[in-house]
Amino acid sequence: MTPGGTPAGSAPDQELLARAALTRVFEPGDEQAGRWLTRYGAAGLMRRLTGPAGDRGLDGVGPERLDGYRRRAAAADPAADLVLIREAGGRFVGPGSVEWPSQLDDLGDARPVGLWVRGGPDLRVWALRSVALVGARACTPYGAHMAQILGAGLAERGWVVVSGGAFGIDAAAHRGALAAGGATAAVLACGVDTPYPRAHAGLLGRIAGQGLVLAELPPGSHPTRSRFVLRNRVIAALTRGTVVVEAAYRSGSLVTARRARRLGRFVMGVPGPATSGLSAGVHELLRTDATLVTDADEVVELVGRIGELAPERRGPVLPHDLLPPAAARVLEALPAGRPADVGEVALAAGTGTDEVIGRLYELHSLGFVERRDGGWRLTGPPGDGATRTGGDRRGGH
Amino acid sequence: MTPGGTPAGSAPDQELLARAALTRVFEPGDEQAGRWLTRYGAAGLMRRLTGPAGDRGLDGVGPERLDGYRRRAAAADPAADLVLIREAGGRFVGPGSVEWPSQLDDLGDARPVGLWVRGGPDLRVWALRSVALVGARACTPYGAHMAQILGAGLAERGWVVVSGGAFGIDAAAHRGALAAGGATAAVLACGVDTPYPRAHAGLLGRIAGQGLVLAELPPGSHPTRSRFVLRNRVIAALTRGTVVVEAAYRSGSLVTARRARRLGRFVMGVPGPATSGLSAGVHELLRTDATLVTDADEVVELVGRIGELAPERRGPVLPHDLLPPAAARVLEALPAGRPADVGEVALAAGTGTDEVIGRLYELHSLGFVERRDGGWRLTGPPGDGATRTGGDRRGGH
Repeated sequence: MTPGGTPAGSAPDQELLARAALTRVFEPGDEQAGRWLTRYGAAGLMRRLTGPAGDRGLDGVGPERLDGYRRRAAAADPAADLVLIREAGGRFVGPGSVEWPSQLDDLGDARPVGLWVRGGPDLRVWALRSVALVGARACTPYGAHMAQILGAGLAERGWVVVSGGAFGIDAAAHRGALAAGGATAAVLACGVDTPYPRAHAGLLGRIAGQGLVLAELPPGSHPTRSRFVLRNRVIAALTRGTVVVEAAYRSGSLVTARRARRLGRFVMGVPGPATSGLSAGVHELLRTDATLVTDADEVVELVGRIGELAPERRGPVLPHDLLPPAAARVLEALPAGRPADVGEVALAAGTGTDEVIGRLYELHSLGFVERRDGGWRLTGPPGDGATRTGGDRRGGH
Repeated sequence: MTPGGTPAGSAPDQELLARAALTRVFEPGDEQAGRWLTRYGAAGLMRRLTGPAGDRGLDGVGPERLDGYRRRAAAADPAADLVLIREAGGRFVGPGSVEWPSQLDDLGDARPVGLWVRGGPDLRVWALRSVALVGARACTPYGAHMAQILGAGLAERGWVVVSGGAFGIDAAAHRGALAAGGATAAVLACGVDTPYPRAHAGLLGRIAGQGLVLAELPPGSHPTRSRFVLRNRVIAALTRGTVVVEAAYRSGSLVTARRARRLGRFVMGVPGPATSGLSAGVHELLRTDATLVTDADEVVELVGRIGELAPERRGPVLPHDLLPPAAARVLEALPAGRPADVGEVALAAGTGTDEVIGRLYELHSLGFVERRDGGWRLTGPPGDGATRTGGDRRGGH
């Protein structure tokens, strides 16, 4: 992949540039916009929105709304936004990009126009082995504790913890993963350069340093109530499953969970006291169509069921030669026959620990390494005849 | 039915007397005994056990065991036991008795030989609308609280709360039902005249006064470890469903729940903190094949699903003329068109409040009355064409 996650070639770049512009035109999840994108492509849609008014086939919305789109399209400056995101250590990825997580396509017409991303790891690879932990902002100490130990436990088992960067359950989940030296991604309802809530500026900075911060909205955007709700569908679609840790009746986390269910993802809930209003929503979910989980092992048991997504059982699924160079360097730095900690690998690879963590989770998703006894090691020989190009790298363990 | 729950006629009495004797011969749940009973009848089996030794077709056990049976059969004095139970305000019921709860037949060869029963209400009618609340002896304050409010809530909704009379969850469930002026039954692993645990002498006395205390074992029997385990199958079979409130891994309550599941009964669990070892067993159950419940409404929603067992929705299922006289008297004492409390009904019926409570739950099971606003009232007209002999009794409400 080319730097910045944009696909190679000029025509796709034009598409991606147009998509970057369109994130300033449409609100997240606009299904009419999704249909137009399918019909005209991003560049074609931008031409229709910025060209002279008249019959351009932009049907399905009233003239006032269309005027709004046209005004915002005229004002968009995607090249400037791309400079902005690059300065913030980020990039813009769209459905044409190598880094695009194709499971987002399950959202159909509500698929994000594109994603603004901060952080080193490859979003597509990380998302392959990710679980969402969501729940109440005003959680109880019990809920925060459970989110933290689940976040840490999932990270320790090589899973990426995805949440929304909010107070309460979200923050505890991110912090649990970070504290375990693990992988975490925050999906925001505002620009990735806009720390919201403000008190989480430091936390979001750490997430962007060690993991990923992403958003549909372009840099500088502020969150609104509807943007929070629509953000939830990205969390639901991006991950293999969603765990609701604490949620009152009619909470937004339940919306995320039900969306995940409709998308065919695993939906899980953490039980709590029947006397707790903040567990009432979870219990309602568990009474209908969610699986009760009490620890990270139970989560992994469920979400790791499908062989394709548990490649460590079969060995790597990607030839070593096709690894991104940075990931290949980290793979080379791992010793044979024993686990190594992140610091040792970083020293051997000649790079920073945050970079190494990001690459190790990518390599884990791809089946080259596994997390064991607090360290990382090369995976053992696969038990069956699956693709095993990396097999010659594995020593006598 | 004749007083004491024994069926009318001489031949069945002989059968019942033999069954009473056989409860001194076999341990609860002895399946070989169950097969012999089917083959020879109770009186025939007693004759074979007390007659001269030789070929009497009592195969399937070794000679030593058979000798034990013969010794115990020779020592049994069922007539004396029946006097003893009568003096304790009780009776003996067997599969031939009108009061026999036929759902116990689902236990097959492990069906109880008979039941020693203390307390006024009709066991068969009460069991029709009963739910078991079971759980740990060494429960947490949370578990005791949940058992108590579920016991009270089920009693308030006209359901009979069945448990084992033990410390912890059992006691809290019984007490919740008693405190709500409701119906509760204790199934013991010892004689019904043997208060176990000793500290529950008062509680078991109150249960026998306001509800039912029953056991497979004859008067004076003491509990053993295996008797506790085998008692659980009676709780599971007697009730429409079993709710596990708190249970550690590998607890006896989980055995009861799994037995209930195999018998086709509803199995439910109350969630608790994932950090609590005393909820771990419940959570394990909920992850496999139990329904999560957090209050009495959710329990009733599940166990009350089958129309036959929710007769209040259809009106009475038994003609008024066939009601036991004591129940008919209480039915006559209920005012038309408004609810009445137990004291008022007792006054009008010229009997005690404990007696009235017992009869009201019988009448509830049979669809004649319902519990409403803390009082009892005659049921409204049925919504369909079900048997409605009691319909003429219902006033303009």
